[in-house]
Amino acid sequence: MEVEFKALLDDLDVLEKSLSDPAPIHKLRSHVENLATLSKCNPHRRSKVKELSSEVVDSNPYSRLMALQRMGIVDNYERIREFSVAIVGIGGVGSVAAEMLTRCGIGRLLLYDYDTVELANMNRLFFRPDQVGMTKTDAAVQTLAEINPDVVLESFTMNITTVQGFETFTSSLTNKSFCPSKEGGSGVDLVLSCVDNYEARMAVNQACNELRQTWMESGVSEDAVSGHIQLLVPGETACFACAPPLVVASGIDERTLKREGVCAASLPTTMGVVAGLLVQNSLKFLLNFGEVSPYLGYNSLKDFFPTMKMRPNPQCSNVACLQRQKEYMLAKPERDAAAKAKMEADASTAIDEGPLHDDNEWNISVVDDENEKDTTKAASSSDTLPEGLTRELPVADEYEKAIAIASGSGETEEEDDLEDLKKQLEALNAA
Amino acid sequence: MEVEFKALLDDLDVLEKSLSDPAPIHKLRSHVENLATLSKCNPHRRSKVKELSSEVVDSNPYSRLMALQRMGIVDNYERIREFSVAIVGIGGVGSVAAEMLTRCGIGRLLLYDYDTVELANMNRLFFRPDQVGMTKTDAAVQTLAEINPDVVLESFTMNITTVQGFETFTSSLTNKSFCPSKEGGSGVDLVLSCVDNYEARMAVNQACNELRQTWMESGVSEDAVSGHIQLLVPGETACFACAPPLVVASGIDERTLKREGVCAASLPTTMGVVAGLLVQNSLKFLLNFGEVSPYLGYNSLKDFFPTMKMRPNPQCSNVACLQRQKEYMLAKPERDAAAKAKMEADASTAIDEGPLHDDNEWNISVVDDENEKDTTKAASSSDTLPEGLTRELPVADEYEKAIAIASGSGETEEEDDLEDLKKQLEALNAA
Repeated sequence: MEVEFKALLDDLDVLEKSLSDPAPIHKLRSHVENLATLSKCNPHRRSKVKELSSEVVDSNPYSRLMALQRMGIVDNYERIREFSVAIVGIGGVGSVAAEMLTRCGIGRLLLYDYDTVELANMNRLFFRPDQVGMTKTDAAVQTLAEINPDVVLESFTMNITTVQGFETFTSSLTNKSFCPSKEGGSGVDLVLSCVDNYEARMAVNQACNELRQTWMESGVSEDAVSGHIQLLVPGETACFACAPPLVVASGIDERTLKREGVCAASLPTTMGVVAGLLVQNSLKFLLNFGEVSPYLGYNSLKDFFPTMKMRPNPQCSNVACLQRQKEYMLAKPERDAAAKAKMEADASTAIDEGPLHDDNEWNISVVDDENEKDTTKAASSSDTLPEGLTRELPVADEYEKAIAIASGSGETEEEDDLEDLKKQLEALNAA
Repeated sequence: MEVEFKALLDDLDVLEKSLSDPAPIHKLRSHVENLATLSKCNPHRRSKVKELSSEVVDSNPYSRLMALQRMGIVDNYERIREFSVAIVGIGGVGSVAAEMLTRCGIGRLLLYDYDTVELANMNRLFFRPDQVGMTKTDAAVQTLAEINPDVVLESFTMNITTVQGFETFTSSLTNKSFCPSKEGGSGVDLVLSCVDNYEARMAVNQACNELRQTWMESGVSEDAVSGHIQLLVPGETACFACAPPLVVASGIDERTLKREGVCAASLPTTMGVVAGLLVQNSLKFLLNFGEVSPYLGYNSLKDFFPTMKMRPNPQCSNVACLQRQKEYMLAKPERDAAAKAKMEADASTAIDEGPLHDDNEWNISVVDDENEKDTTKAASSSDTLPEGLTRELPVADEYEKAIAIASGSGETEEEDDLEDLKKQLEALNAA
């Protein structure tokens, strides 16, 4: 609008010169100047900052984040500015995840979505009614840039499941211009999948397996009251193709379901919690604090949070996954040596530190390890897995044996677990 | 700005009539009209709706919420428009809670805060840099009204811990103009405490004990990585004064701590998760679905979620709490009869329903009761409580005996548990 106001004022100047009495023009000009000022009042943005400051003043947008260092939670919070995170799907979970990372001062965000904002999205956080009709990527960039101009935002308005889209997706992930010194094939540090369909998850899975890219998957159930997050490290954990979801195994095409007007329920609460757990896990992964969860479920009806670990499936249908599994096995001696060296280094520098905070203002319980292990064990035991997926897939140890690397502690899991699983699924479908 | 544009166009009309050549005025008018259109583009609001529709169209802001009924989660979602919720503290948790309830279409929100928006708040969700300097209540109303004009918003810019503020607070809670048919002394259905200090929590506690008002408390630790929510039903559960927080017991004045420039860390993730759990628990409470959690902790470093129940303390220092405890005990025969009648009614109408959804698209695990009970038991056993609060307070059964109501199943807890607790706290402080 600034340009338009300038043109209007110029025209007034021209008109003034042609008139004998300039008084009406003066009045008009004061009107226009007033309007120009009003139009600038909102939005005003904060300016960029050069370095994250830990100064405790109201005007410092990073004081409460840098305090994480003083509190002993994070060693070096400023590193956050070096990281690139790609978010696929800017819906109920992805948009909130993007806002959280933006407010944390992440270095660079890559956003992927092909959809537009609708009023029907207003029951989730983030998008506003005045953004209806905009692409989700444009609307997100508009909001996020205003919140934190320090974050480098790149948006891709496209469907990653098309041939063209998938190519653009992988090539955007390999772009290293933001951090040229980054090792490996990928230019991002983490990919977050916040999509709502199987095809898109498989596309993210394929790209990440190919690029050796660690990613996290998230999802919310159709009835809006459950969700989960999952960490996927190619070769080390199960990939998304290792454990086929039930809906695919049962032969129902999800696209058909959607076309038939099935309207999934959704709640800002469940999606907000899942986004929060996802970004918290991402921060722990990137900034190296706490324990990164391999899988965390959220059953909101009972406030139950199951956890589990899923090892890769040696019979996975994804060729890139099998390659990553092989590499992971071959690198075992190297990993063991590194772990040993780290353990020795830690032991030699270990200092007996007292508790950082003597006070516990609001009874926040940090439960001692002993008890927590019990709970985790209960939650991750095979009995608590969803029906039809109660048996663990063949463990990586089996694969290890197959490629003839000595493994003394191989577990006695049966080779035909996957067959069992398929039979169970068929029985479920027949019922 | 609309008024200003109108005035400008009127002046142009006057000028046009006084000129021999109207051409320059035509050009000016088209400029102004263009600007007026631009200024209206942003923000535009959605219009109010009369009734919540479950129609599956992109333009329906309630389609995904009404789907909760079709999915069998909620019996009657439309009831949400009848409820009033008061949120005390519009900070990192309270603002997000307010946004979630607004997007869910809550009937009426009462917002209390005395603080102003600062850039230092930008590491949490909700407030925007262009709102810096506004009161949090004004900024919240601005944002929430734009998101959902159907919600009745009432804001109170004041400190509820002052004498005057406390009076205004209680009288606002007793206002029944929104739902004149509401029973009991309070005009709201739920109070959410999202404050960051002891005094304000005690003020909410006092008001709710006096008004027999159910409320939920929330909190996030100073190191930003833990939080909790708690349900408080006067007389039935522990009130906030029943279990004194450690910081008070240890004799440290929190106001002194704050004045000395201690800057607590905070994260949008932890606060988003706590707000999500708080509002989810509120929705379960208001709309009568799932299990309302009496206490739910969130330890983000380990993704551990302890649960527990806290019964009222018969030696509680809060007189109103003791009155509510007495009333609760006296109403036991009535409650028992009602529970029996409900059980019989349920049994006679019970229909053997199959599972609502055969598919489990994304492996969301709804764990069977058996296993969950084990986990809950582990998490809520006294061993997992924070140190210094490991012993349960004297249970309500003791009180029941004291007021001479027969209680055959009284547990053999010791009367001097509170004394034990105090001694432990003193030992901790001395160490």
